Amino acid sequence: MTAAYLALMAFQRETEALAQIAGRLGWDQETVMPRGAAAQRSEEMAAIEGVLHARRTDGRVGDWLAAAEGRTEVEAAQLRLIRRSFDRATKVPAALAQELARVTSMAQGIWAEARAQDDVAAFLPTLAQVVTLRREEAACLAQGGDLYDALIDDYEPGESGASLAAMFDRMRPRLVALRAAVLGASHQPKALTGRFAEAGQLAVARELATAFGYDWTRGRLDLAVHPFSSGAGNDARITTRVSETDPFNCFYSTIHEVGHACYELGIDQAYLLTPLGNGVSMGVHESQSRIYENQLGRSAAFTGWLHGKMVAAFGDFGIAQDAFYGAVNRAQTGYIRTEADEVHYNLHVMLRFDLERALIRGDLAVGDLEAAWNDRFLADFGVAVDKPSNGMLQDVHWSVGLFGYFPTYTLGNVYAGCLHAALRAAVPDLDQQLAQGDTSAATGWLRNHLQTHGGLYAPREVVERACGFAPHEGPLLDYLEAKFRGIYRL
Amino acid sequence: MTAAYLALMAFQRETEALAQIAGRLGWDQETVMPRGAAAQRSEEMAAIEGVLHARRTDGRVGDWLAAAEGRTEVEAAQLRLIRRSFDRATKVPAALAQELARVTSMAQGIWAEARAQDDVAAFLPTLAQVVTLRREEAACLAQGGDLYDALIDDYEPGESGASLAAMFDRMRPRLVALRAAVLGASHQPKALTGRFAEAGQLAVARELATAFGYDWTRGRLDLAVHPFSSGAGNDARITTRVSETDPFNCFYSTIHEVGHACYELGIDQAYLLTPLGNGVSMGVHESQSRIYENQLGRSAAFTGWLHGKMVAAFGDFGIAQDAFYGAVNRAQTGYIRTEADEVHYNLHVMLRFDLERALIRGDLAVGDLEAAWNDRFLADFGVAVDKPSNGMLQDVHWSVGLFGYFPTYTLGNVYAGCLHAALRAAVPDLDQQLAQGDTSAATGWLRNHLQTHGGLYAPREVVERACGFAPHEGPLLDYLEAKFRGIYRL
Repeated sequence: MTAAYLALMAFQRETEALAQIAGRLGWDQETVMPRGAAAQRSEEMAAIEGVLHARRTDGRVGDWLAAAEGRTEVEAAQLRLIRRSFDRATKVPAALAQELARVTSMAQGIWAEARAQDDVAAFLPTLAQVVTLRREEAACLAQGGDLYDALIDDYEPGESGASLAAMFDRMRPRLVALRAAVLGASHQPKALTGRFAEAGQLAVARELATAFGYDWTRGRLDLAVHPFSSGAGNDARITTRVSETDPFNCFYSTIHEVGHACYELGIDQAYLLTPLGNGVSMGVHESQSRIYENQLGRSAAFTGWLHGKMVAAFGDFGIAQDAFYGAVNRAQTGYIRTEADEVHYNLHVMLRFDLERALIRGDLAVGDLEAAWNDRFLADFGVAVDKPSNGMLQDVHWSVGLFGYFPTYTLGNVYAGCLHAALRAAVPDLDQQLAQGDTSAATGWLRNHLQTHGGLYAPREVVERACGFAPHEGPLLDYLEAKFRGIYRL
Repeated sequence: MTAAYLALMAFQRETEALAQIAGRLGWDQETVMPRGAAAQRSEEMAAIEGVLHARRTDGRVGDWLAAAEGRTEVEAAQLRLIRRSFDRATKVPAALAQELARVTSMAQGIWAEARAQDDVAAFLPTLAQVVTLRREEAACLAQGGDLYDALIDDYEPGESGASLAAMFDRMRPRLVALRAAVLGASHQPKALTGRFAEAGQLAVARELATAFGYDWTRGRLDLAVHPFSSGAGNDARITTRVSETDPFNCFYSTIHEVGHACYELGIDQAYLLTPLGNGVSMGVHESQSRIYENQLGRSAAFTGWLHGKMVAAFGDFGIAQDAFYGAVNRAQTGYIRTEADEVHYNLHVMLRFDLERALIRGDLAVGDLEAAWNDRFLADFGVAVDKPSNGMLQDVHWSVGLFGYFPTYTLGNVYAGCLHAALRAAVPDLDQQLAQGDTSAATGWLRNHLQTHGGLYAPREVVERACGFAPHEGPLLDYLEAKFRGIYRL
């Protein structure tokens, strides 16, 4: 290793450690922080973000990058990721970065208030400001290229709006058709009813996390308003939430976050506190949370095991084992993305993708967004949006400037579909194992074939290496059609 | 305000925010961190400490200090504290500071192992190293003055070994005599026996924290192996521990930590995230924890109220209300400082003070420490030390280089005695209030007369301003003699 490489990596290691600290503060804020500490915490977060920004744009990083040589595949990958971060941080003028931080921080509160009041007009001026600033930022990053592509790159390096649009356009007709068939089916699965006490839900959630191989010595489970996972390396914590009438929300949020956390915990320890020691992209991250949650956790085999756990925890709750798989997977049209089932979920994402791409490319005015949203929702879901909080005001993303993030949710599902196909081929008796609550072969395969690599390979590349084929939407659509035709007896 | 003052304070505010973050990480580590995250956390802590050290020695701070003028009492005090920190940080060569951090970090593990094995010889070489390094550091700080005084200054600015020694020498005969009288008394209070379930103890602990005015919107209570308080400004958290046979440990640890936390939470909000926004010294801090715990919490009036709470939580536990005050305050000779009652506690501290002062001044060799400890313990406590873990290996302090810290415990008790005398004069019906579990007049008086000032005045000065007289050991000794003569019917 060259001296410049060593110096750069030592500096970077401290930066990664400080970034972990910022993440831990975020966890603290959403789980255990006393509410009266909020204003002080904002200053603390701003201070550590300031330190991180200064380190990421430190001139010495540029000098080391110029002098360093990556003499192995790993070294080259480390340098590539540091260069990426340095270029991104130094391309955006400090004044613009600060203004974006200021406006999005303020915008989140204005959005929350507008959503509570169902008042689109109260949000539009702020949204327009955020869009303008993010377009300015995108222009700095794109250097003549597509503005939306420049923003996608923050979350999914190497992906482009055009290729995503093409893929989504191939997916949408089959999903719309599947949705219509499922909702029109004469057989409709029975829904879960009744109340399920919090203590019992959390006990089952812990069993589920354990069943999916969550390492409790390097993580923990807490309650939060919106479930999330947090932290990398050897401290990857998860959260869930409890609704007494909807235990599936608690259970599948838990499994989803376990998927995210296991990705981080599964990365090769040699990459700890280096750029390679993090999940490589949002889409690949989501592929792990989704395959844990859906292809494994909502499978007929695994739900059979879960049924037994629920009976043990709550007694007879009115759904027999043979009807339970249907109850878990019951599809229902709803306005809210985060509550959507597997049939509807990607349609929610595609709607947002098309709209936000048009906003950033300048093809849609902020003032026309609500009408565009409502038209599209009616077309894809067959239902008119009844109020803005069920429509364009439902998600926090745009208020905080997250344009380019939404498509990674569906990309993650697509990757999960591919990985699932490969996993089924590699572990022929997977269903027998899942029926015993044993996910070890499946999660072990994912760890060894994908998670362990961290940031070593580009997103599509790491999925292709794991699957043995270039990822595409086919396996996901085939899986969804087979699964829901079975459940709905189509 | 001058431009230099404003620039300095803006920089300092971020430093204070980062210091709060480091404190929060410490809290996390002792309460909620998964144990497998320990090694990674060490790197995270080192990274943030590195950032803090760089800021505290930043040349711009020196320039701003040279140019800034303090035009008010508050501005002058802020500058005084920043200058103090800057001078301290820049006087010690970076190489020495790093070596101290390295050796003390390693020494703590060696001490813990030596204590577990009762093996003094295994600890002595490391202790000798720590003493040598701290003496070197003291020489940098003292610039020709007394080495031990230079170390005291870290914890109790303005205090000196000589004045503390003189005060302790005045206190010791009266404490030794009181101890002998109490242990020889024909009346001995009944001891608490039985088992007290954890849930009940924690419920009472929460009631106690509330009774002492702990602001739950700006703090929280968790379990920890060694109780501590953590954080300043609007996020001051406390911890306690539970032993099923010793609920007083849980209750009085809680009240003690509430005293520390209320000091931080009681500081004028105008000082938030500035040097003035922290407790001014360890001794003054301890005065608050001790007066909450002992003079208020272990008073006859308050224990009467606590008795009712314990009966409500646990049913009849075998001690009637009229015997409960004695049970709470029962004095017993023991080897361990942290378990000592009010009669014995300061004797433990004085022993450590004399020995550590001699070590740092070069009057005692590390190899002679065990014999010196055991001789002194026999003289003051009338009992021979049976094993090193009950003697010189019991406390963590010396392994981590905390020389000069011990005397602040007794100084805190002395300050608490003074404040208690003044408080009694200011609130004549205090006992009637405490008998109702109402500490609001007492804690309000402490907040308004002392806590609110934060770091504005020097330690002795802030106590003198609150009390109306220069602090001295008399009130504490008078209080202890009156209290224990009463309990032991002497």
